Amino acid sequence: MPLIVTGSIGIDSVQAPTGAAEDVLGGSCVYFAAAASFFTPVRLVAAVGDDFPPHFMDTFRRFRIDLAGLERRAGSKTFRWRGKYHENMNQRDTLSVELNVLAESLPPVPHQFRDSEYIFLANTHPAGQLDLLANFPHRKLAVADTMDLWIETQRPTLLELLTKIDGLVLNDSEAVMLTEELNIIRAADKILTMGPKFVVVKKGEHGSLLIHKDGEIVLPAFPARQVIDPTGAGDSFAGGMMGCLAATGDLSLTGLRRAMAYGTVVASYNIEAFSLERMKQIEKSHLDERYLKFQRMMAL
Amino acid sequence: MPLIVTGSIGIDSVQAPTGAAEDVLGGSCVYFAAAASFFTPVRLVAAVGDDFPPHFMDTFRRFRIDLAGLERRAGSKTFRWRGKYHENMNQRDTLSVELNVLAESLPPVPHQFRDSEYIFLANTHPAGQLDLLANFPHRKLAVADTMDLWIETQRPTLLELLTKIDGLVLNDSEAVMLTEELNIIRAADKILTMGPKFVVVKKGEHGSLLIHKDGEIVLPAFPARQVIDPTGAGDSFAGGMMGCLAATGDLSLTGLRRAMAYGTVVASYNIEAFSLERMKQIEKSHLDERYLKFQRMMAL
Repeated sequence: MPLIVTGSIGIDSVQAPTGAAEDVLGGSCVYFAAAASFFTPVRLVAAVGDDFPPHFMDTFRRFRIDLAGLERRAGSKTFRWRGKYHENMNQRDTLSVELNVLAESLPPVPHQFRDSEYIFLANTHPAGQLDLLANFPHRKLAVADTMDLWIETQRPTLLELLTKIDGLVLNDSEAVMLTEELNIIRAADKILTMGPKFVVVKKGEHGSLLIHKDGEIVLPAFPARQVIDPTGAGDSFAGGMMGCLAATGDLSLTGLRRAMAYGTVVASYNIEAFSLERMKQIEKSHLDERYLKFQRMMAL
Repeated sequence: MPLIVTGSIGIDSVQAPTGAAEDVLGGSCVYFAAAASFFTPVRLVAAVGDDFPPHFMDTFRRFRIDLAGLERRAGSKTFRWRGKYHENMNQRDTLSVELNVLAESLPPVPHQFRDSEYIFLANTHPAGQLDLLANFPHRKLAVADTMDLWIETQRPTLLELLTKIDGLVLNDSEAVMLTEELNIIRAADKILTMGPKFVVVKKGEHGSLLIHKDGEIVLPAFPARQVIDPTGAGDSFAGGMMGCLAATGDLSLTGLRRAMAYGTVVASYNIEAFSLERMKQIEKSHLDERYLKFQRMMAL
């Protein structure tokens, strides 16, 4: 089943103890779409400015991404993010962020995308997420990601979004911020009372968990000896997860568990290089192989 | 197979956002022995001072612990620890520690304990750990725990110990401290070069991982909605793990994985109350039940 995503497309600059990357392709829906495209065709709705480097398009073409909803907007500038990772690679500082085209309206949804059944609202302004969601009357599964910035500054809009989606994906620190509950499991319980049927909490190198009214899923991360750039780990996790769900249509706890494990595996590749460089080098067979390895590491 | 353990027996005082406990039974080998005793009989070699409250003996008797190696030493004082947990329950400050009898020599190993095949050197002075280890020529598996204090102050003795044991159990921050390697997996790789055949890294609420020359194991923690007192979580994890290994004799990666999962489950009970109060209330059947629940949460 085709999966549609909106979110940010960015020009990123990253400093890390492992090196630096200046003006590389990034953004939540880029990482998401590339990761999901290993499992299912992906439709993208997002805008860039007229400063968007044309050669970035080659990366999109490497993956199964339908770009009919990608608008290059004259007179606007592309979203930019500059960040720096700490020595331990688990924490980062945002050095600067320019919303630019992200603060404007979304491009129209192409007519041929309106039958989309699997919707992912990658991290972007919740008003844009709500706008996009309204276009898909036949949706089977709508999941959103969010971040600290929107929790702090757009809480009412975010709370409205929560009543309209099936699942929310967010970091552990964001779950705490949204609910003011320090225990992650209880924070997730509280988010379920705000609307979604399930919540996925991403814990970076510590894995992920899902709280659903019918049960819980806990998964470690795939152990990584070499982390080059954690940027996009959460988005590629969500991409692998949603791609797998859209491909199988299995929304049971078993299906969600398999999807989260595939998300974990895609993310573990993504962090092995800056930008999307590592995902560009792999095929679905690499994911299947590492999935089996992951399975063996924790099979009880 | 009987399992033998040495380590600390303590009088603990704990402050946490969930309450406080003054002068309660604690210590690494107490939590360990209680947890292990659900799986196999446990032999204990350790000393307390003449200030050790007699009613603490009732707790030992609740579990399958052979106390022939427990010495009540006249003129000595019991080890004492006072700590305070932060708001998030993941970090704690040691407010005071009195080594007392821990700084003296270990009691002699009772003759009938010398055939022990499974040895656990719970967290205590590495000289005491080395001393005890020398008593068991027929050992099949010797595993030690350690802590930041010994890594900082007793490094040569600790490094000697590492050449004589099969496995090391330690926290993530301790693995970093021991190896000066920030990546946990590479830190564990480095510890393997120091002697042990496997290293188990405990990550508290984030689970645990094992690095072995033949493979890796990663497990999340059991999701806990209510953490009352994390004291002894690592020791009860190790107790459940070693108890399971001694009971089954299965030292394969599959056996180690099952043992770590049982350790995870015992620890998840232990943190539900202060001191050993929660472990006193449960039976092996509770562990089996939660083990199945844990298995279902991550079965791929």
